[in-house]
Amino acid sequence: MTDKPEYLMQAWYAAALSSEVDETELFRRKIMGKGVLIYRGEDGKPIGMHDRCPHRFAPLSQGHRDGDNVVCPYHGLAFNGAGNCVHNPHGRGTLPKGQVVGTFPLVEKHGFIWIWMAEEAPDYDLVPDYAPLDEGPATGIGHTYMQMPVNYRMILDNVMDLSHVDHVHGEIITTRGQLTPLIPKVVEEDTAISARWEWVQQPPILILAPFLARPEDPADHYVQVNWSAPANIQLSIGAVQDGAGFDQAVMQYDLHTCTPEDEFSTHYFFATRRNHNEDDAEYNAFKIKAMHDAFITEDGPIILACQEEMGEDDFFDMNPMLLSNDLAPVKVRRRIRDLIKREQDAGQLAEAAE
Amino acid sequence: MTDKPEYLMQAWYAAALSSEVDETELFRRKIMGKGVLIYRGEDGKPIGMHDRCPHRFAPLSQGHRDGDNVVCPYHGLAFNGAGNCVHNPHGRGTLPKGQVVGTFPLVEKHGFIWIWMAEEAPDYDLVPDYAPLDEGPATGIGHTYMQMPVNYRMILDNVMDLSHVDHVHGEIITTRGQLTPLIPKVVEEDTAISARWEWVQQPPILILAPFLARPEDPADHYVQVNWSAPANIQLSIGAVQDGAGFDQAVMQYDLHTCTPEDEFSTHYFFATRRNHNEDDAEYNAFKIKAMHDAFITEDGPIILACQEEMGEDDFFDMNPMLLSNDLAPVKVRRRIRDLIKREQDAGQLAEAAE
Amino acid sequence: MTDKPEYLMQAWYAAALSSEVDETELFRRKIMGKGVLIYRGEDGKPIGMHDRCPHRFAPLSQGHRDGDNVVCPYHGLAFNGAGNCVHNPHGRGTLPKGQVVGTFPLVEKHGFIWIWMAEEAPDYDLVPDYAPLDEGPATGIGHTYMQMPVNYRMILDNVMDLSHVDHVHGEIITTRGQLTPLIPKVVEEDTAISARWEWVQQPPILILAPFLARPEDPADHYVQVNWSAPANIQLSIGAVQDGAGFDQAVMQYDLHTCTPEDEFSTHYFFATRRNHNEDDAEYNAFKIKAMHDAFITEDGPIILACQEEMGEDDFFDMNPMLLSNDLAPVKVRRRIRDLIKREQDAGQLAEAAE
Repeated sequence: MTDKPEYLMQAWYAAALSSEVDETELFRRKIMGKGVLIYRGEDGKPIGMHDRCPHRFAPLSQGHRDGDNVVCPYHGLAFNGAGNCVHNPHGRGTLPKGQVVGTFPLVEKHGFIWIWMAEEAPDYDLVPDYAPLDEGPATGIGHTYMQMPVNYRMILDNVMDLSHVDHVHGEIITTRGQLTPLIPKVVEEDTAISARWEWVQQPPILILAPFLARPEDPADHYVQVNWSAPANIQLSIGAVQDGAGFDQAVMQYDLHTCTPEDEFSTHYFFATRRNHNEDDAEYNAFKIKAMHDAFITEDGPIILACQEEMGEDDFFDMNPMLLSNDLAPVKVRRRIRDLIKREQDAGQLAEAAE
Repeated sequence: MTDKPEYLMQAWYAAALSSEVDETELFRRKIMGKGVLIYRGEDGKPIGMHDRCPHRFAPLSQGHRDGDNVVCPYHGLAFNGAGNCVHNPHGRGTLPKGQVVGTFPLVEKHGFIWIWMAEEAPDYDLVPDYAPLDEGPATGIGHTYMQMPVNYRMILDNVMDLSHVDHVHGEIITTRGQLTPLIPKVVEEDTAISARWEWVQQPPILILAPFLARPEDPADHYVQVNWSAPANIQLSIGAVQDGAGFDQAVMQYDLHTCTPEDEFSTHYFFATRRNHNEDDAEYNAFKIKAMHDAFITEDGPIILACQEEMGEDDFFDMNPMLLSNDLAPVKVRRRIRDLIKREQDAGQLAEAAE
Repeated sequence: MTDKPEYLMQAWYAAALSSEVDETELFRRKIMGKGVLIYRGEDGKPIGMHDRCPHRFAPLSQGHRDGDNVVCPYHGLAFNGAGNCVHNPHGRGTLPKGQVVGTFPLVEKHGFIWIWMAEEAPDYDLVPDYAPLDEGPATGIGHTYMQMPVNYRMILDNVMDLSHVDHVHGEIITTRGQLTPLIPKVVEEDTAISARWEWVQQPPILILAPFLARPEDPADHYVQVNWSAPANIQLSIGAVQDGAGFDQAVMQYDLHTCTPEDEFSTHYFFATRRNHNEDDAEYNAFKIKAMHDAFITEDGPIILACQEEMGEDDFFDMNPMLLSNDLAPVKVRRRIRDLIKREQDAGQLAEAAE
């Protein structure tokens, strides 16, 4: 049991889908325990602020827009996107000097709005780069969002151990038991860990089969998950027939990314780009809805039940019986723990040096 | 964050509207964390007791009346209004000596039942006196009650800083921005703090305009709030035309009073007496309903959102950005804090002296 | 307030009604804070296991049966009823040695499945024996179950002090005030305490009157409750006319038994066997439903209200005003406390000796 939730702070987290924040409204999402207001300036660029008026602590998201400024719903103070107070209707209207509302650097990329929650200056080199998501028509990519009352690591565990597809999911994405016995090839870097499985199955996995030349015949398959800190997992899955290389595969390129709402609640986003049937808008809508629904009805309940069994206990303290399929997710859990510790140690050193 | 909620104990709080406690039923309300039973004796006078049988701790309010006594629902013990056990149907029926259920002094006044929760003897000189509430016909006064899941100070803040009317409320009680820039005149006494604003607006404030000679023309306005410990705010608002004195004003005389249910829940009562259209029962019903609904739909949601942002943190510890409109409410918060401390220090001195 | 709930561990508790666990399904019930899976092997005998996969902590009850084994819903591990892993579809399929899921000894008797939750070996001599429940036709016995958000001692209190029937219950089981003034005869043994009341009433108690020769005439009555550790109360109630002995009585033989779900939630089971109108299936269904409904609508709300008033405070710390009717329930509370202490002291001695 931890006294205080610990997050990797110097990192970019998905705060919202681009489509969740429109041109006129004030959008609120709690991230790592803190209310965040996101809205688009008149130039369309997203602005991120602490969703709390510094006067009486009303959520600014319940106020209204005044051009690029936001007006508090309680006593009418107005703030610009830099967190300065630009209008005070009270008394002589004195404006406090300097920034009075915390702001959060945002970057919009790949259909997501990414946020930097640390107090330290943002490191733009760390902005995630998933360029393939942007390559292709709008009808070839889908995005979705859901909220789950679990620690974010529980979702990372699920995606880093794809053996669960044979047990949790129905006909549509099973490998018919081919993947489960495989020990994935795992590659580790400092802030990234990947796992890859390759196998043959007949018929091919049903999400890809209809797009292969002979949907009933065997196909070579691969699936690869690339975790990178803090909580992004890029997943590619493909199938190919007739001994062609995987670069010829019918495949999809997905991003799963998790953002802690708090210690036991997670914002879970994903995006999926495919290289087949890319111009079919109707199929595109069906595809992302099917992925969303599979998580809600199949993965979600089991992950939630595991969390309920674990309560507030630490995963490793519970002495789990680890199997070969835990190789990648356990490395990710340990790496996150180490990166948080490294960040906190560096913070203490910096403080001591001051 | 406080370990234990702290209240000013030696004070009279509104426990109920007179109309909430009828001649026959047992009425329960939790006050400062304690279940309180209120019922009327056969003489109509309200009786206040700890709503807990001393035997097995059943709430007496779930039992029944037997004349002026109340009978426990679980094992049939009966208690009189002084907290003595007057009937024990068990075994030889031995009655315990003395008072076995705590009682609370009550005073009924101005359409409220006031309660003294302290262990010390009640100080009847402290019973609130709002005589103007009683002056006029029954069709000229309304009372209402609501419960809000916030600390009671949040509601005092709202009423002591009336600048919010220009931002939170709609057309009906806005001052059209005239009040917000004013710095109120604040008067402090030991257990009372008042604030007063005066201004001109055209048209006059819409709750009063229809009762002025020329509803479209400018009028002189005033509003005054008189806080007194622990949590009463008497508010008067009036408007007058043609340079007449405020003693000629079309006005209303209101009482807002808060009683902590617990640290983060408040019983909020108010009463309103007006000096115009006093004999119109239909208008009277409309008037109190409109005030009730304005709080529920306009003030309430913002106050609640502020409380949620504050969580269990202390207001001053959160380093609020204070403005001129905070003059009165901040003085009230500080005075309540000081009065609680004074009371506790006196209690410790008294204990030490024993 | 206790830091950790304390239970008498080396004891048999009712885990389920026999009828709750069918031949095919996986049944889950939380007992003393722990998820327990119960299912029937192919021989029909109940199997009890910790409802938690040792791998990722998924509840096995959300998985499925494979013969006598249970398959985890998350990653397909299979376990037999002894808690051994018998199938691992991952990697090389290595099976961990030995028992990896905790099991709980179960005994099925009197229409209940009894569970031993202690780590120590089960003591089969302690299995409750209520042979009269088994004597007679199936249409002469009923069983029921309900869950109540109270500490289990609150329900024991209720049944051990039957004076409540005159106050809590309606016409159907009142003694018309005859029982309340009686001081029961209490007999104490080491792990058992009984209380007995005898009285005359006219008309006889209405649950028995219709089965007496002259339902309107006076009858001799008795009721006896026999508590035995940890939380079983066997209750017999009977009536007889014309000076015949109680062995001739029209009577019913009931078992009330409580199992803590956790400190403030209780599984409450009861069974009732009668010696009259035994072959009437319709009456039998009516009878158990009436008993169930009486608890839900009459005892339950008062017990719950008492628990809410008590919060997490200890009963004795609250300084209850004890009466003659508390003789038996207070002895039971003290005995449970002493038995828990005795068990814990013995455990510490055993540890020290190792």
